[in-house]
Amino acid sequence: MNIVLHEAFQKMGEFLFCSHVILSSMNCLFLLETVRRNQMKLTKRSEDYSKWYNELVGLADLAEHSDVKGCMVIKPYGYAIWEKMKEELDRMFKETGHSNAYFPLFIPKSYLSKEADHVEGFAKECAVVTHYRLKNAEDGSGIVVDPSAKLEEELIVRPTSETIIWNSYKNWIQSYRDLPILINQWANVVRWEMRTRIFLRTAEFLWQEGHTAHATKDEAIAEAEQMLDVYAYFAEQFMAMPVVKGLKSESERFAGALETYCIEAMMQDGKALQSGTSHFLGQNFAKAFDVKFADKEGKLEYVWATSWGVSTRLMGALIMTHSDDEGLVLPPKLAPIQVVAVPIYKSPEELAAISEKIEAIGQELKKRGISFKYDNDDNRRPGWKFAEYESKGVPVRLAMGPRDLQHSKLEVARRDEKSKEVIDLDEAVGYIVGLLGEIQTNLFNRAQSFRIENTHEVDSYEEFKTRVEKEGGFYLAHWDGTKETEQKIKEETKATIRCIPLDQKEEKGICMYSGKPSVGRVIFAKAY
Amino acid sequence: MNIVLHEAFQKMGEFLFCSHVILSSMNCLFLLETVRRNQMKLTKRSEDYSKWYNELVGLADLAEHSDVKGCMVIKPYGYAIWEKMKEELDRMFKETGHSNAYFPLFIPKSYLSKEADHVEGFAKECAVVTHYRLKNAEDGSGIVVDPSAKLEEELIVRPTSETIIWNSYKNWIQSYRDLPILINQWANVVRWEMRTRIFLRTAEFLWQEGHTAHATKDEAIAEAEQMLDVYAYFAEQFMAMPVVKGLKSESERFAGALETYCIEAMMQDGKALQSGTSHFLGQNFAKAFDVKFADKEGKLEYVWATSWGVSTRLMGALIMTHSDDEGLVLPPKLAPIQVVAVPIYKSPEELAAISEKIEAIGQELKKRGISFKYDNDDNRRPGWKFAEYESKGVPVRLAMGPRDLQHSKLEVARRDEKSKEVIDLDEAVGYIVGLLGEIQTNLFNRAQSFRIENTHEVDSYEEFKTRVEKEGGFYLAHWDGTKETEQKIKEETKATIRCIPLDQKEEKGICMYSGKPSVGRVIFAKAY
Repeated sequence: MNIVLHEAFQKMGEFLFCSHVILSSMNCLFLLETVRRNQMKLTKRSEDYSKWYNELVGLADLAEHSDVKGCMVIKPYGYAIWEKMKEELDRMFKETGHSNAYFPLFIPKSYLSKEADHVEGFAKECAVVTHYRLKNAEDGSGIVVDPSAKLEEELIVRPTSETIIWNSYKNWIQSYRDLPILINQWANVVRWEMRTRIFLRTAEFLWQEGHTAHATKDEAIAEAEQMLDVYAYFAEQFMAMPVVKGLKSESERFAGALETYCIEAMMQDGKALQSGTSHFLGQNFAKAFDVKFADKEGKLEYVWATSWGVSTRLMGALIMTHSDDEGLVLPPKLAPIQVVAVPIYKSPEELAAISEKIEAIGQELKKRGISFKYDNDDNRRPGWKFAEYESKGVPVRLAMGPRDLQHSKLEVARRDEKSKEVIDLDEAVGYIVGLLGEIQTNLFNRAQSFRIENTHEVDSYEEFKTRVEKEGGFYLAHWDGTKETEQKIKEETKATIRCIPLDQKEEKGICMYSGKPSVGRVIFAKAY
Repeated sequence: MNIVLHEAFQKMGEFLFCSHVILSSMNCLFLLETVRRNQMKLTKRSEDYSKWYNELVGLADLAEHSDVKGCMVIKPYGYAIWEKMKEELDRMFKETGHSNAYFPLFIPKSYLSKEADHVEGFAKECAVVTHYRLKNAEDGSGIVVDPSAKLEEELIVRPTSETIIWNSYKNWIQSYRDLPILINQWANVVRWEMRTRIFLRTAEFLWQEGHTAHATKDEAIAEAEQMLDVYAYFAEQFMAMPVVKGLKSESERFAGALETYCIEAMMQDGKALQSGTSHFLGQNFAKAFDVKFADKEGKLEYVWATSWGVSTRLMGALIMTHSDDEGLVLPPKLAPIQVVAVPIYKSPEELAAISEKIEAIGQELKKRGISFKYDNDDNRRPGWKFAEYESKGVPVRLAMGPRDLQHSKLEVARRDEKSKEVIDLDEAVGYIVGLLGEIQTNLFNRAQSFRIENTHEVDSYEEFKTRVEKEGGFYLAHWDGTKETEQKIKEETKATIRCIPLDQKEEKGICMYSGKPSVGRVIFAKAY
């Protein structure tokens, strides 16, 4: 049974359903439930990181594959984390002067072709709408596409919205007084990926895309840099995930951008994950869509543009930065439930007495804006609940039994370090508030230490090749600045240039691959 | 020029752009701007309600048609109103125990066919994805659909998500302990409409769709009714729009539902607008997707379902309930800017002195959670600003000139009644807070009086036919309960049964059309 369950992990839903049909008795269902909880030991990270990740996404009830190839279902607990991310980001976008708007899901095929680089990057793998009607099959076999309802021009489900948005901006911008336009959109986008992984690479994903229009080049660059800073701040302060800010090399740039700024984070397997990008688009889209404005002197100029985005990929980054072999670990600032309390009791009287104490603490925590859940569900045992909230990454778990009650004590367990303390009840609220802050800081520090330990300067290509393969991590190395060298290194090692760090030190050196001169070190790593 | 501008109203963007290219001098641009503001007199509601609506959507900068047939662009000001709606609704959904989640955009064609009524209702006009790749045309003429990338099964862009969601619930539900499932989704949906109007009927629109699963019929019905109440509360308390709660007749029911509950509002032209629906789906989708649960005795039962939704259509309802010939009128609770202040000054010294007073008021208002904008933009004249905020429906406008300053006075204008008062500066904050509440109530009362005045009991079909055509409005009339009668009345008058009111009085009568017996009056009206 264990083996079957373990192997069937990713199809757990189906498995339970089938078993259920076969067994169909409540005893068996309860048994299965217990088995599920007890047997759902994750594969260890050290054994198979990728398998651990997939299992964790299921165990913590974050998301699952849908029957539609490449599309995921984001389950309520996963979506609650995404909502918290959205809320913070949206607030920061508004604080920096941006407004939200909404543009069409569909892009006429011809729009994609208007910007030469853009079409190369995005026209290839996308969902194409060719018809607008179904009808009953003449042979009565079901419904079929109505051939008479063929679109004159095919529509593409947006892979990104630069083209459809600049086609609108064309009508919105006449004079310098119409600028800047600072708009963000929260939307779903589709890129037809063949190899998908939940949150990291899916055909449909959720994201935000900012699209701004400016009168000057400097202003557009400042905007792109500002939004990179917003992303970095969010990643570090809320996700507790340290990031390197940098510029992409030419071959890794967004299709249509003059510069792509990025934040890169290191996952626990030493691989890099690009977590957000901000593009300086120059006048490329303004030229493609003929968007000019009259400046103060009445002279017509093309408009300068940026775009910037983060997506549900951040969920993958969050998981892989902090979680452990027991399950999800969440930074308190993004945890849907920050504190959970579990009563341990034998009689209704005990429960009532414990509940009174715990609920008083809960009230105080809620007053301080802390999300608190009291799980007094009588159908589940404390051990089951402990495992449940551990796997879901609830930062702080409280427990109180009859003895604690008697001595006015409370057990406080922190998820990040898996440690427990017994504290005095009357100190509980202050202690918990402080602990949440401490966990947030600890997670960031832990991730930062890990990154520092796994970031190396290398000068020899042989050393680089061996280490990047065996150890993973980030490698600061000299590069001659050419596409050719980058491409060859990628082919030979599967590592890519993650970014040219914005804080790159000026340091003359020679390219580890070609021996040609270099002005500073860039970061190489294998990446998601 | 006036005539050209007026006729070109709906293409104003293009017009300005063309003119701009031709004239291309700043003087002309300023002129155009002034002309735009002065000439943008709306068509009067009494002249052409439909034209008034379209012009208003443009004038208030809410939304516009995109180049993609049937799809709209929701502009920042319009989207800010929608965001306020979302925020309140989302809060109410969570307060009633619901969580948000996200399901795929695409639905395999075969899923639509699984529920017999559902396919009839939704499979006809929809966007069909048939391919997943584009490629460069061999003749170099651009990009074309790659015929080798044809999907085995076509995907439908979701017109509503019952099928894809119940296909997931199948795996989530085994026992009564998994129930209820109370999930909501905020999403975009597509129904290929041929005749579209912004917000009221567009191919793509934004909405929320709740999908719940229950162990018993009673619980599902209670859920459907609860959500109808949430919608009605939102409509009346936030949109200041009175609604009639009722049940749809069989022929107006949602495709797949056993009962459709609805809220119906009356627009200023006397037409009805269905503003939200909540469906009791029985076990139809559970049967279609084979979703059973084991009850407490271990017996397998099909699950009971509801779904419920409101959409960006509410934006159209909001506009048409309150706005006037000068532009948008917004209830304070949904206004992105609740109070705007405009300084009137000749010298920088005057501006500084006025600003000090106004900003102090602004600070106090913000402390009370009121959104306040101080428009001290030196590029626009006060008259221009007054017109701008009037057209955008800002509930309260403050103005202060040198004489006001001298006498410690403030001019306060309310948008709903287009009246002004001059008040003492030191009473301003309390007065404004009270006024916002008064405007909210006044708008509701005004709309309710209008509805009462335009709701009539009729017994004669001849009278009904004449009046519904000439006067519009709601008609409470007896109906024999048959589809045939409903259909004939619709064909002859274009009026439909909007709902069977939940508070329908028991009253024996005879159907105004067929003369057959009836147990109570239903509401007939022409509808959007």
